[in-house]
Amino acid sequence: MVKTDHSQEMLALLKELFEERIPFNKVLGIRFRSLDLEQVCLEIRMKEELIGNFAKGVLHGGVISAILDVTGGVVAMVDLIQRMKEHSIEELSKKLINVGTIDLRVDYLRPGKGAYFSATGVTMRTGHKVAVIRSELHNDQGLLIAAGTGTYIVG
Amino acid sequence: MVKTDHSQEMLALLKELFEERIPFNKVLGIRFRSLDLEQVCLEIRMKEELIGNFAKGVLHGGVISAILDVTGGVVAMVDLIQRMKEHSIEELSKKLINVGTIDLRVDYLRPGKGAYFSATGVTMRTGHKVAVIRSELHNDQGLLIAAGTGTYIVG
Amino acid sequence: MVKTDHSQEMLALLKELFEERIPFNKVLGIRFRSLDLEQVCLEIRMKEELIGNFAKGVLHGGVISAILDVTGGVVAMVDLIQRMKEHSIEELSKKLINVGTIDLRVDYLRPGKGAYFSATGVTMRTGHKVAVIRSELHNDQGLLIAAGTGTYIVG
Amino acid sequence: MVKTDHSQEMLALLKELFEERIPFNKVLGIRFRSLDLEQVCLEIRMKEELIGNFAKGVLHGGVISAILDVTGGVVAMVDLIQRMKEHSIEELSKKLINVGTIDLRVDYLRPGKGAYFSATGVTMRTGHKVAVIRSELHNDQGLLIAAGTGTYIVG
Repeated sequence: MVKTDHSQEMLALLKELFEERIPFNKVLGIRFRSLDLEQVCLEIRMKEELIGNFAKGVLHGGVISAILDVTGGVVAMVDLIQRMKEHSIEELSKKLINVGTIDLRVDYLRPGKGAYFSATGVTMRTGHKVAVIRSELHNDQGLLIAAGTGTYIVG
Repeated sequence: MVKTDHSQEMLALLKELFEERIPFNKVLGIRFRSLDLEQVCLEIRMKEELIGNFAKGVLHGGVISAILDVTGGVVAMVDLIQRMKEHSIEELSKKLINVGTIDLRVDYLRPGKGAYFSATGVTMRTGHKVAVIRSELHNDQGLLIAAGTGTYIVG
Repeated sequence: MVKTDHSQEMLALLKELFEERIPFNKVLGIRFRSLDLEQVCLEIRMKEELIGNFAKGVLHGGVISAILDVTGGVVAMVDLIQRMKEHSIEELSKKLINVGTIDLRVDYLRPGKGAYFSATGVTMRTGHKVAVIRSELHNDQGLLIAAGTGTYIVG
Repeated sequence: MVKTDHSQEMLALLKELFEERIPFNKVLGIRFRSLDLEQVCLEIRMKEELIGNFAKGVLHGGVISAILDVTGGVVAMVDLIQRMKEHSIEELSKKLINVGTIDLRVDYLRPGKGAYFSATGVTMRTGHKVAVIRSELHNDQGLLIAAGTGTYIVG
């Protein structure tokens, strides 16, 4: 019997959830530049509400940690989708709903200047219980603004 | 000659700055419940924009890390005001403007449920270059929601 | 039927394991000052091998992070023993063997000067999968030398 | 006037200091596989004293955090030597003596199995006051055992 691959369907659900259904993500203006099994890239655009220092016009540190946290969580979820792509949508959804951040370290490396910013992540450890994801935020000049390491419950 | 103590004036400026002049703090709705040389307590109230999980109605992790980061920064600034209270407002302001987060660890301990949340911090290390501040976020039932440890540039 | 409480037996096994059976713990000279369900306190004594700075005669940072990591692990294990004290020694042992550190943050607050040092920890989060433990190292004058926060797999 | 480049002399002093003069580094058996302005690689070899789990024969977590901490410190020092290579040996030495770890996060990714292990680091942020260094420990199969991020005082 041929197994059905639900990964594309789940990724579409994930995109809709993160972009449209999470109120604080909408405040941040999080959009996916790419979201597939090989690559995850989130983007935010500078706007006045996200400023942390009125004199310097840079992103608030809380915006930076928020997007790195979200990026790590999405990467952990995409890993789960990859591993469980032949499970039913119901089983997968139940798994994804329970993904949560346990802890996060953020290193603020340069002032968050730019018109837009992109965030990516890589899996450093993955297992049945926890995943560790490293994430980075770059500005529109390709400068590394901040880096994060988060530990996520995945099972 | 009697030295003038500028601490109360600086604390008033700090309050105005953090509550009124930082756009993302206004998005979060950060208010000071107390802000003096002995005690710093910030408060935020739950509102729809701050939600991270539409099903559970809890604070977004990014809101939690943002408020812990802000709390640590304020505690580091109040320490500076305490130590430099006899310096001029200009000197003090120049110092405070350069305070910045180097890194932050956040431990997400319980779901962010509640009508309001309060954040406090204690100084673990202070010096001429860096300060390390531990912070905690409690909900309206007194439950510890998250804890943070941040390293801040102070000189 | 009366359930047998195996906690005292397990604590005695834990003490023997950590003090006598783990080679690197012997290098560090880790001893328990107290080890019961209410309180965990480890001690190490200064000796030449533990020095990190020949000029200043202070503990090596690696010694500090090692003892904080061990302390957090022991506190996570004691929590498990408390929760599972009526399980068999075999079941408990199997659980304890799988406890492991996922990540650890250490803040080095003061130089590690002293003739002996004591380490304690408190549980900040505990569950079926992970525990988060905060630990502190004090010197013989009661000065806080370092603080740690570790996330541990417990199930 | 031609400026004298003291970097090679300082690197030789650093090598001697870290390999021969720091007692706990000798316990760990730290050796440099490479130490120049372009590349820093430390090595340790498995030996009984470094074991953390007698059943599994793997490195103790404290050994892993110690070597990552040392690696980050050396990379921060090599950055300083690079930037100040035309200063006198006395000035450089005074700078290097004050380099210290403020905080460190370690992610334990895989069991520390192997006959030998190598540690490398990259600078993520460098400045007049603090440096942030990311470090990695690989085993003799090239497997990533652990990763660290440390913040160091450098000025």
